[in-house]
Amino acid sequence: MAGSTFGTVFKIMTWGESHGKGIGVVVDGCPAGVALCEADIQEYLNRRRPGQNRYTTARMESDEVEILSGVFEGRTTGTPISLLVRNQDQRSRDYGNISELYRPGHADYPYDAKFGFRDYRGGGRSSGRETIGRVAAGAVAGKLLREFRITVRAYVSAIGPVTVDRSRMDFSYLSESPVCMPDAEASARAVAYLEECMRAQDSCGGVVECIAKHVPAGLGEPVFEKLDANLAKAVMSVGAVKAVEIGDGTRVCEYRGSENNDCYVTDETGAPRKATNHSGGILGGISDGSPIFVRASFKPTPSIAQPQSMLGRDGKCHEETIRGRHDPIIVARAAVVVEAMTALTLADHLLLAATSRVENLRRLFPPA
Amino acid sequence: MAGSTFGTVFKIMTWGESHGKGIGVVVDGCPAGVALCEADIQEYLNRRRPGQNRYTTARMESDEVEILSGVFEGRTTGTPISLLVRNQDQRSRDYGNISELYRPGHADYPYDAKFGFRDYRGGGRSSGRETIGRVAAGAVAGKLLREFRITVRAYVSAIGPVTVDRSRMDFSYLSESPVCMPDAEASARAVAYLEECMRAQDSCGGVVECIAKHVPAGLGEPVFEKLDANLAKAVMSVGAVKAVEIGDGTRVCEYRGSENNDCYVTDETGAPRKATNHSGGILGGISDGSPIFVRASFKPTPSIAQPQSMLGRDGKCHEETIRGRHDPIIVARAAVVVEAMTALTLADHLLLAATSRVENLRRLFPPA
Amino acid sequence: MAGSTFGTVFKIMTWGESHGKGIGVVVDGCPAGVALCEADIQEYLNRRRPGQNRYTTARMESDEVEILSGVFEGRTTGTPISLLVRNQDQRSRDYGNISELYRPGHADYPYDAKFGFRDYRGGGRSSGRETIGRVAAGAVAGKLLREFRITVRAYVSAIGPVTVDRSRMDFSYLSESPVCMPDAEASARAVAYLEECMRAQDSCGGVVECIAKHVPAGLGEPVFEKLDANLAKAVMSVGAVKAVEIGDGTRVCEYRGSENNDCYVTDETGAPRKATNHSGGILGGISDGSPIFVRASFKPTPSIAQPQSMLGRDGKCHEETIRGRHDPIIVARAAVVVEAMTALTLADHLLLAATSRVENLRRLFPPA
Amino acid sequence: MAGSTFGTVFKIMTWGESHGKGIGVVVDGCPAGVALCEADIQEYLNRRRPGQNRYTTARMESDEVEILSGVFEGRTTGTPISLLVRNQDQRSRDYGNISELYRPGHADYPYDAKFGFRDYRGGGRSSGRETIGRVAAGAVAGKLLREFRITVRAYVSAIGPVTVDRSRMDFSYLSESPVCMPDAEASARAVAYLEECMRAQDSCGGVVECIAKHVPAGLGEPVFEKLDANLAKAVMSVGAVKAVEIGDGTRVCEYRGSENNDCYVTDETGAPRKATNHSGGILGGISDGSPIFVRASFKPTPSIAQPQSMLGRDGKCHEETIRGRHDPIIVARAAVVVEAMTALTLADHLLLAATSRVENLRRLFPPA
Repeated sequence: MAGSTFGTVFKIMTWGESHGKGIGVVVDGCPAGVALCEADIQEYLNRRRPGQNRYTTARMESDEVEILSGVFEGRTTGTPISLLVRNQDQRSRDYGNISELYRPGHADYPYDAKFGFRDYRGGGRSSGRETIGRVAAGAVAGKLLREFRITVRAYVSAIGPVTVDRSRMDFSYLSESPVCMPDAEASARAVAYLEECMRAQDSCGGVVECIAKHVPAGLGEPVFEKLDANLAKAVMSVGAVKAVEIGDGTRVCEYRGSENNDCYVTDETGAPRKATNHSGGILGGISDGSPIFVRASFKPTPSIAQPQSMLGRDGKCHEETIRGRHDPIIVARAAVVVEAMTALTLADHLLLAATSRVENLRRLFPPA
Repeated sequence: MAGSTFGTVFKIMTWGESHGKGIGVVVDGCPAGVALCEADIQEYLNRRRPGQNRYTTARMESDEVEILSGVFEGRTTGTPISLLVRNQDQRSRDYGNISELYRPGHADYPYDAKFGFRDYRGGGRSSGRETIGRVAAGAVAGKLLREFRITVRAYVSAIGPVTVDRSRMDFSYLSESPVCMPDAEASARAVAYLEECMRAQDSCGGVVECIAKHVPAGLGEPVFEKLDANLAKAVMSVGAVKAVEIGDGTRVCEYRGSENNDCYVTDETGAPRKATNHSGGILGGISDGSPIFVRASFKPTPSIAQPQSMLGRDGKCHEETIRGRHDPIIVARAAVVVEAMTALTLADHLLLAATSRVENLRRLFPPA
Repeated sequence: MAGSTFGTVFKIMTWGESHGKGIGVVVDGCPAGVALCEADIQEYLNRRRPGQNRYTTARMESDEVEILSGVFEGRTTGTPISLLVRNQDQRSRDYGNISELYRPGHADYPYDAKFGFRDYRGGGRSSGRETIGRVAAGAVAGKLLREFRITVRAYVSAIGPVTVDRSRMDFSYLSESPVCMPDAEASARAVAYLEECMRAQDSCGGVVECIAKHVPAGLGEPVFEKLDANLAKAVMSVGAVKAVEIGDGTRVCEYRGSENNDCYVTDETGAPRKATNHSGGILGGISDGSPIFVRASFKPTPSIAQPQSMLGRDGKCHEETIRGRHDPIIVARAAVVVEAMTALTLADHLLLAATSRVENLRRLFPPA
Repeated sequence: MAGSTFGTVFKIMTWGESHGKGIGVVVDGCPAGVALCEADIQEYLNRRRPGQNRYTTARMESDEVEILSGVFEGRTTGTPISLLVRNQDQRSRDYGNISELYRPGHADYPYDAKFGFRDYRGGGRSSGRETIGRVAAGAVAGKLLREFRITVRAYVSAIGPVTVDRSRMDFSYLSESPVCMPDAEASARAVAYLEECMRAQDSCGGVVECIAKHVPAGLGEPVFEKLDANLAKAVMSVGAVKAVEIGDGTRVCEYRGSENNDCYVTDETGAPRKATNHSGGILGGISDGSPIFVRASFKPTPSIAQPQSMLGRDGKCHEETIRGRHDPIIVARAAVVVEAMTALTLADHLLLAATSRVENLRRLFPPA
C-alpha cells in the first residue's frame, strides 16, 4: 500500500530510487504566502550531500534541486510544490551477484519477501538516497516554521564510544566538523575512531539529537496524534534508526517522580517557567512551550568491506563481500534528515493546532 | 483536530474521560469471520484494571465491556465493532483547586493552552483510563492475529533500578507477579523497591518489553509507513512513554557494523535463519520473519503525595499537594497497553500487506 | 477495510446495526468551546425518527441520544464526543427466509459477496437506521457552523411526479408537511400520490435539495478535496441516492457558456455580487460566497409488499414477498440526513481552510 | 491543506500548473509485478492532448510522459511511480489584466479569497491541464485493472442538445469521432452544433458516460467509503462537472419501487443474473457484479470570446473579453479524465476488498 506519504494537512509524498532517474518529493498543504526559492532547499540538501569528505561515500552527486510547481513570484501559492533532484551518478555498472543475495542488515530480504522482487541497484527505494525527498521537504517546512520564529537544529551527539560534552557544545563549529558534532574536541576524537573503524573494514553507530525552540504550547492532538508519537514515527521512519527518545528518554525509567516532574518556578521577570525540562517540551503529547528535545540512535552502516555470510535467493548461505565504498557512519549525513523530519512534524501540527478552538476560528472567519 | 483514530484499514477511534460516563472504542475494518465475544475482550481489560493490588490505584471499577455492534452469531461481520465500558466510580467529588492549577508532569497546562479549558476531573481525556479503549481494541486485534498464529506478549522488564534477568524469565509467572515481571526474584525486589518509594511519598519509572512471534516477513511499507515507525508511534502515544526502542535499540550506537549485522546461517533442518536478531525482526522497516522486539521506557507516575510547586491559571506558582491515591508505577498496568498497541499495529500492517503483489491479488480475485 | 469514518479534521466514525443493541457515532475534532447539549442533537434526530405518520415505518423507536463524552460544563472540550442511541424495538422476531434470500434493490447480495455472511436482521449495517449516526454528528456540525452564522437546510423538492413550485416555497411549512415539502399544495399532492403507491403495494422515489447560506468564500481544497467533490461523496454515501447535483446540475449540459457563466454586477450598496448562481456557490471546487446548492435523487424504497423474484444463497431464483411495513418513500426522513452530511462536509472544510494562508496562521500563533 | 491526494491504498498525488514547468503525478501503492512502460501511459495522455482538431485549444503540447521511478525491468516494484510531463508551450506572454480580474465561471475569485493570491497564468493549478496527472495515474490503474480483466471505457453521450442513440452506439468509431462520441451520426450533428456555438463566440456543455465491466462483486466499503460515494467524489472533482449519476441516476426519482428494483432471473446457462441494471452495478455502495455505470454532466467552457462583466481585484465590475483560443467544449477531452478517475477508484477499492474476510487473508498468509 501507499507508504510514501507523511503528514495530514502539511503532507508530503516522496519517490525515487538510488540508481533510478532521480529522487523527488511533492509538498502539498504548505500555506500560501511563504517566500521560497531553490537556494532555500539547496542549502539543506548540501548538508546531506555525499562526497563531502572521506567519511562519506565517494559517489559524485551535485544533488541540485529544481522547483517544478507551487511557487509563483517567489512565494508559495498553497498548491503542491514538486521538487526534483536528478541522479547523475547512475551509470550502468556491474552489480555482481547482489541481485541474488540478501545482505545482512539490509532490507534486501524483506523487500523480496514482500514484493516478489526488487530494484537491487544500490538498494533501490531502501537506499539512504531516499532521504533527499525528506530533506528537500523539510527545508520547506523549516522555512514555514521560521515565519513563527520556530527553529529546529540537529547535530551528532555520539559516534561509537565518543560523545559530545554538553558543557562544551558550540553550534558555530557544526559546519566545520566533518562529523557534524558541535564540539571540536569530541569531533576530533570521533574522526580518530572512524579512521580506526575504516582500517578494520568496519562501520559504527551513533546518536543524533534535535532541538526545536520557540514552539508554541498547544501543538499535538490527544491520544494517538500526540506530538511525541508523531515525532517518534517521523524519526523512526529514517533508515537505520533503532530508538527514539523524547526529553530524558530511556533515563526516566530510573527516575523517581519527584526527580522527573518539571516543577514551575517564577523567573526574574515574574513570569512562570518550568524549572527543568525532563519532559523535553512535551506533556501529555502536547507541546508545553519549552524546547522540544528528540534523540535518535542509529545503527552502524550495514555495508562493510568484510566478508559476511549472506542469504541467497537460492535459500543457501554464501560468504561474500559487498563491493563499493560506503559511509563508515550514517549519523553525520543523517543529522539534517532528523532535523527535516522534526520540522515536517512540527509544521503539520502547527497547522492542525489552528483548528482547536472555536474562538480562534471566529477570528479567521468572522460571522457575516 | 481528530487525534483519537489509529490505523489505516484496521482502524480504531477511542473516546471517553476519566470521570465522564464511560470509555469506549470503535474498531472498524476488522475482517469478517473472526470469532469474538465479550470474554475475549474482558480478559485483556482485566489485566489493566485498577484495584488489583496495593501498587495500583484504589479506584473501584469492574471495567466490564459491552459489545454494541459488529458481531453476529459469534463472528465479526466486517462492520464497526463498538465497545463500551461504563465508568462506575464517577461520583461527584471535591476536586479542590485542581481546576485552577497545572500539576507538574501532567498534561494540564498544555490542554488549557490548546483548548482554552479542560475537563479537569481525574485528568479527563489525558487520564490513564483512556487506555481502556486501546486495550479493548487490542484484544480484537490479538484475536485476529491468532488466526495467523501470531502472538504478542508484553511484560515489565525493569522498575527503577530493578531489572529482570533474561536467563531466568518465566512467562508462567507473569500473572502471579503483582508488577507483571516474568522473574519471581526480580519481581520481589521490585516490590520492595516500590514499598520504599511509597514510604517516601514518591513514584518510579520502568520499562515494558513486547515480543511478537510468527509475524510473516513482508509487513510494513517502505519509507514512512515502516513497521517500526508505526510501532514507535503506537507505543510513544501511550501516556508516560518517553522512549521507544526496536531490537537492540539505543545500544546500537556503540556497535560496530560487524557486530550489529545479523548474518545468515543454516539451521539444523538446512533452512536459513538469522544467526542473531539485533534488528528486532525488522529490516528497512519491513518484518524479516524473526521475532519482533519493542521496548518502551515509562516515566514515573507524576502524581505524588509530596507538596510540589504548581502553576496556577492565575500565572503564579503555588506549593500544593495532589490528593487521592495513585499508582506508584505505571508499567505494571501499562504492559497490556503496549501489547495492545503492538497488536493493533501488526493487524493493520497484516491487512495492508495483502495488497503488495499483483499475483496475490489475482488469487483472491481470479479474472472472470 | 474501515469505511465508517468521514472527514479529515472534523472526523466522525459511526457504528451500529438495525437490530443490534444500538447506533452511535463518535465525533472527533470538533473545536473546543462550542455550547452543546443533548437537546441540540435530539432535535435533529426527531426529524428522522420513524413512526411520525403513516408514510414512515411503524417501528417504535424514541431514538433518544446520550452524550457519553467530550462535553464538559456545557461546552465541547475538543476531545471525542461519543453519542449513543439504544435500539428499543429489537425484539427477537421471525426473519423468515430473509437470511437465505437476496432481496432486489437491497445490499444483501453484495454484503454476502464481500464478507461471506451478514447480519440479515433488518438490513444490519446497510439499514437506513445507520443514518442515526450521521444525523447526530450532523447536529454537532450544525451547532459549530452556526457559530459562524452558516445555516444549512434541506427539504424534499419532488416525490415521484410531484414537484414543489419554487415561487411558492415556504420553509415555515416544512415541519407541518408530512413529507417535508416546503409547499403546502405540492405536499398535499405528494400525499395523494403516496396513498396511491401504497394501495398499489408500491413505493416511489424523490428529490432532496439542500441550501447552505453564509458560507465564506475560500472553503474547499484544489484538485481532489474540492468542496463539491466532498459534498458529492457525502451525499452519495447516503443509502438510495443515485445522483448528486451542484448548482444547476444536469441542466448545465444543455447550456451555452454565455448562459451558464455567473457574471458579476454591482448591487445597490455598490458591492459586487454574482448576477446569477448557476454554479451553486462553488467555482473550481472552492466556495465563492454565494449560497451553496446541492440536490440528491433518491430511488424508491426497495422493500415493497409485492412478490418479487429474489436470488437465494442456493443460487436459485425464488418468488417471495418481503414482510413487514416499510416507508413508501425515503426522502421525507432523508432530508435531515442530506442536511447532516452537508453540514459535516462544511464543518470539515471550514477547519481545513484555517490553514490556507501563512498570514492567517500568524494571527493565531504570533511569533514569540 | 493538502488536497492533491486521491485514494487510500492505491494513492496518487498530482502537482503542476498550466504555465509552470510541468505537470506530474506520483502513484504510490500500486502492487508489485504489473508490466508497465511509458507507451502504456502515453496512449491515455494522447487521448486528452490539446491540438488534435479544431474543437480543442491550439496550444501545442506533445505531453510526453517520463517514468522517473517505481518501475524496474519493465514491472512495477510496489514503490512510488513518479510520472512527469514537461510543459513546452509555456513561453512568457502578455496576460493582460487577467491577474487583476476574476473571470466569470472560473476559479479566479475563490482562489484569491482562499490563498490571498494565485498563479494567474492560464488558470495555474485550476487549469484543465491539471488533469494530465489524473490521466497518467489512471493509465497505471487501468493497467492494473486489466490484470483482473476489468475494463473501463468512457465516451461523450451528449453535447448541448445532441445525444447519442443507444441503439446505434459503436465503440470502434470512438477514435474517429472528433468529439469522442460512439455514434457517427450524433457525432456529425454535434460537430455542426459546435460550429454554430463557435460562430456565436460561445461554448456549450455536455455529458460523459463511463462503463466498467467485469468488476467483481464486493468492492466498496459500507457507509462512507461506498464505491458509488467514491466514484461521485472522483468524478465531481474533475473541473466543470456539476452532476454525477450512478445507474439510472436522476431518473430514479420518478420510478416506482417495482420498476426500479433489479429482480433476479436465471439465464440460459442456469446461472442467476439481474434482469435489469437500474442500480448501475452498485447496491448498498458495494459492487454487485453487473457493469458499473457512471454519468457526469459538464458545464460549458467558461472562457468565451464575448465581452463579459468581470469582477476586479479593485472591487469593481469591468466589461472585458478573455483573449486566446479555448476549447468550445470540455467533454471531448474530458472523457478520458472520467475514465481515469473511475479506474483509480476501482483500483483502490479492489485492493481494499482484499482485506474484507479473514479466510481470504489466511490464503495469503498461511499460519506458520
